[in-house]
Amino acid sequence: MTSSPPENELPGMAHAGLLEYWYAVCRSAALRRKPKALMLFGTPIVVFRNQAGLAMTLADRCPHRNAPLSAGTVRKNGNLQCAYHGWEFCGNGTCAHIPGRLGTIPAKWGHVVHYVTEERHGLVWVYASADAEPARSLASLVTEPPEGRYVHVLRELQVEAPLLPTLENALDVPHTAFLHRGLFRGAQPHRITATVTRYPDRVVTEYTGEPRPTGLIAKLLSPSGGLVEHSDRFILPSVAEVEYKIGTENHFLVTAYCTPVDEQRTQMFARVAYRTRALGWLIRPLLEAAAMRIFRQDAAMLKLQSDNQHQFGGEHYLNTELDLMGPHIRRLLKEAETHLELSAVVAARKVEFDA
Amino acid sequence: MTSSPPENELPGMAHAGLLEYWYAVCRSAALRRKPKALMLFGTPIVVFRNQAGLAMTLADRCPHRNAPLSAGTVRKNGNLQCAYHGWEFCGNGTCAHIPGRLGTIPAKWGHVVHYVTEERHGLVWVYASADAEPARSLASLVTEPPEGRYVHVLRELQVEAPLLPTLENALDVPHTAFLHRGLFRGAQPHRITATVTRYPDRVVTEYTGEPRPTGLIAKLLSPSGGLVEHSDRFILPSVAEVEYKIGTENHFLVTAYCTPVDEQRTQMFARVAYRTRALGWLIRPLLEAAAMRIFRQDAAMLKLQSDNQHQFGGEHYLNTELDLMGPHIRRLLKEAETHLELSAVVAARKVEFDA
Amino acid sequence: MTSSPPENELPGMAHAGLLEYWYAVCRSAALRRKPKALMLFGTPIVVFRNQAGLAMTLADRCPHRNAPLSAGTVRKNGNLQCAYHGWEFCGNGTCAHIPGRLGTIPAKWGHVVHYVTEERHGLVWVYASADAEPARSLASLVTEPPEGRYVHVLRELQVEAPLLPTLENALDVPHTAFLHRGLFRGAQPHRITATVTRYPDRVVTEYTGEPRPTGLIAKLLSPSGGLVEHSDRFILPSVAEVEYKIGTENHFLVTAYCTPVDEQRTQMFARVAYRTRALGWLIRPLLEAAAMRIFRQDAAMLKLQSDNQHQFGGEHYLNTELDLMGPHIRRLLKEAETHLELSAVVAARKVEFDA
Repeated sequence: MTSSPPENELPGMAHAGLLEYWYAVCRSAALRRKPKALMLFGTPIVVFRNQAGLAMTLADRCPHRNAPLSAGTVRKNGNLQCAYHGWEFCGNGTCAHIPGRLGTIPAKWGHVVHYVTEERHGLVWVYASADAEPARSLASLVTEPPEGRYVHVLRELQVEAPLLPTLENALDVPHTAFLHRGLFRGAQPHRITATVTRYPDRVVTEYTGEPRPTGLIAKLLSPSGGLVEHSDRFILPSVAEVEYKIGTENHFLVTAYCTPVDEQRTQMFARVAYRTRALGWLIRPLLEAAAMRIFRQDAAMLKLQSDNQHQFGGEHYLNTELDLMGPHIRRLLKEAETHLELSAVVAARKVEFDA
Repeated sequence: MTSSPPENELPGMAHAGLLEYWYAVCRSAALRRKPKALMLFGTPIVVFRNQAGLAMTLADRCPHRNAPLSAGTVRKNGNLQCAYHGWEFCGNGTCAHIPGRLGTIPAKWGHVVHYVTEERHGLVWVYASADAEPARSLASLVTEPPEGRYVHVLRELQVEAPLLPTLENALDVPHTAFLHRGLFRGAQPHRITATVTRYPDRVVTEYTGEPRPTGLIAKLLSPSGGLVEHSDRFILPSVAEVEYKIGTENHFLVTAYCTPVDEQRTQMFARVAYRTRALGWLIRPLLEAAAMRIFRQDAAMLKLQSDNQHQFGGEHYLNTELDLMGPHIRRLLKEAETHLELSAVVAARKVEFDA
Repeated sequence: MTSSPPENELPGMAHAGLLEYWYAVCRSAALRRKPKALMLFGTPIVVFRNQAGLAMTLADRCPHRNAPLSAGTVRKNGNLQCAYHGWEFCGNGTCAHIPGRLGTIPAKWGHVVHYVTEERHGLVWVYASADAEPARSLASLVTEPPEGRYVHVLRELQVEAPLLPTLENALDVPHTAFLHRGLFRGAQPHRITATVTRYPDRVVTEYTGEPRPTGLIAKLLSPSGGLVEHSDRFILPSVAEVEYKIGTENHFLVTAYCTPVDEQRTQMFARVAYRTRALGWLIRPLLEAAAMRIFRQDAAMLKLQSDNQHQFGGEHYLNTELDLMGPHIRRLLKEAETHLELSAVVAARKVEFDA
């Protein structure tokens, strides 16, 4: 009774292995009564809350006449109702009601592809494989925010660039000294030693010899100074984490969850937690303004870079030993995508540079 | 002397058999002194009136340097003159004059593809095969509006969707009870029996057991009530017709001529004729407002549907027995398109549902 | 260490032989401290002035992370610095500095494709082959403006059409009598004899029997009248030149340098030199207003033509004997593009027509 493409063949990017992970798709607070039209790896999805308030995700297409289910409404019974003919669907994709039609609904009819969905730390997470039970738990991906006297901030922004350059940018130290000069690092560079270690599911870089950075943000965050511990982490496939401990009193942790919207766009959810000797809430407005400026500078550069690669018909990178994380991120993503056996641990590599 | 593609090879959709029909391209009243640039099955055409006021249609390309003839003007002699070098063409596509050039114009030169054109019932009709005599008369396609004490209305609107979903939408009853709730049908559904009959060139559905609909429009049209006769008709390849007779006094007939502009757009010309016990002209403003609201709701939904099919890489329908007309329309269009022998009459099929 | 496409493989149009010529890319006066992002044959280039004020041209892509170098700045040392990580490049494409990195830069690293660049007559010229020494001098292409008591004007405009129709339009007489009626030629046509001669690198048409044109511009330029000498010239691959001598006192020379931006856009630099019996500077405002009107009419028509060819899936020309230059221009461009041996001189062909 159906025409053309087979039922579960969805459009979008062919990233096999990368679909077997969880991705943050929107903030919990942003998902209310109205269903949300989103996109994940190029596939349109609809996220909605059922009558119990649980977040549910379906492919955003009614099987009857292909209207987007996100144009519909959630009924009191928790079903998502299509706006065209009023067909209703449960959160697991089963067709529950066809207005006007007599008799029961055949089981094989009207099933919509669904995606397992969970909420954690203020975000709605979707497991990206259609109609599949998760191969790994969400907990294995999401790091817990620190407890205690911390200020917590959650921000969201869209980057017009693919996943890889977005992740690399978030964990790249050299550009911070140049593109964001004065905001984080000061005008005078210092000799730093970085130690990179690649694990099967992550890459970690630890920096030593770094003085307290002298830019605006660094001063706000660590008025007191002290020994600097700085590490950057990539966790397969979507997490970029930057952590600074300065002395015993100042701690700063940014966790960026990067979600591939499609081949050219990445949605970033940045969770920031910090504590300082100073009153955290007092510096928050200044800190946020400076952080948003950095994010906007990065987003603008990523768009320039991505557009230019498009103009030149593809990406064409030259790596130096200062590109600490990018080549490793690329390799892990590639391995996950193609289901290759995951990398063995690579013995830590030391690199010296100025930043 | 010509370069690249062969002279009569026009762009646009490859719909072979569907080109052997007439299509409404604009309202007669909208075609004045200025030539009109239109599109039919993806081919740009120019429609203009010659000195005798007759509507003529050419492919919208000057054979000399390919400027659009629609950017030119109609001369007093009835020729269409190109705006670039002033070449003139008769309505049959013959080149009549080349400014500055001495001597006669070789017969094989400068012929523009032309399309047989007629006007009827306030519309300009074009036979969609290039440089061809019609295989069938316009009269075989166009139904005559009823005579007598009727109010007549002609409206035009563009739908951003292909021909098939547009035709199906125009003849689909179940969505009227949902998408247009309150406008035509009331809140309480009734059991209806539909009888569908497919002929070689049309599909007819007759509804019985239908009470007078209780929505706004129905009340306006049939204040007096009475026995309801309702039938919906598709006539190959572009006509969707809805007819209501309520009692002896009220009669309502919508004929929608649907013209494929290109793969994604359909131009609809809706001719409405009605008479009621009430004074027809009195209810016309209210009726038109309600009808335009219905049209806009349908146009918005068709665009959502069409965009979503594009997102998902194609159409993917599930048909139930409530989809009375769509599958038959698809079949007849397919047969006409591919020059298959046309369907035999399919014995009437009865379906019960609530609307 | 690099990924995907080989280093010097640039995008853009495959015009082999046409790349072995010089093209005007911007006015000298428009190139100041800020690097300029331009495009030549579909390849993004960046043009900038080094510390000595010399114009330099590189492919507009940093080899490191592919940011457009045009988003960067020129340093005091004359290097072009990328805006992302601060890498610096000399005008010959050599990478001169990588911030933060210790040790020397390996020779094979970070070379950016460069283009030989010169300035002449107020224009910046680029030799379109990547990393190549010019096969011919700029002087062989650029004609010298006349010396003496002349008014000189340089204007720039972008045309949304490919190179060939733009060149043909600039040298086409018949359309001037129609599209620009009244501006250059008057209402009454005259019999003209044109003599066309094709050389290996140019086409020249000389017109005899032409009276002084009677349009506005012609009257402004030659108040005194006299014998008219008119010739039009195409010089491979980008120059269209129109010259009028009217009597002994009036001389008018337009040299249009046409640069292929990409497949659909041509940048035109029009150099006008004229002297008349009247005070040249006095008529300049009127003359410029009329000339700009002609340019805009042509640009609008070229866009219509080009868009229409796109709609119809390609160009499809019919040539008459009035198309004096176009077919020859096409042939020379084709020969140059494909490295065919260049045409022998074609004995002058005479054509009569009215304009």
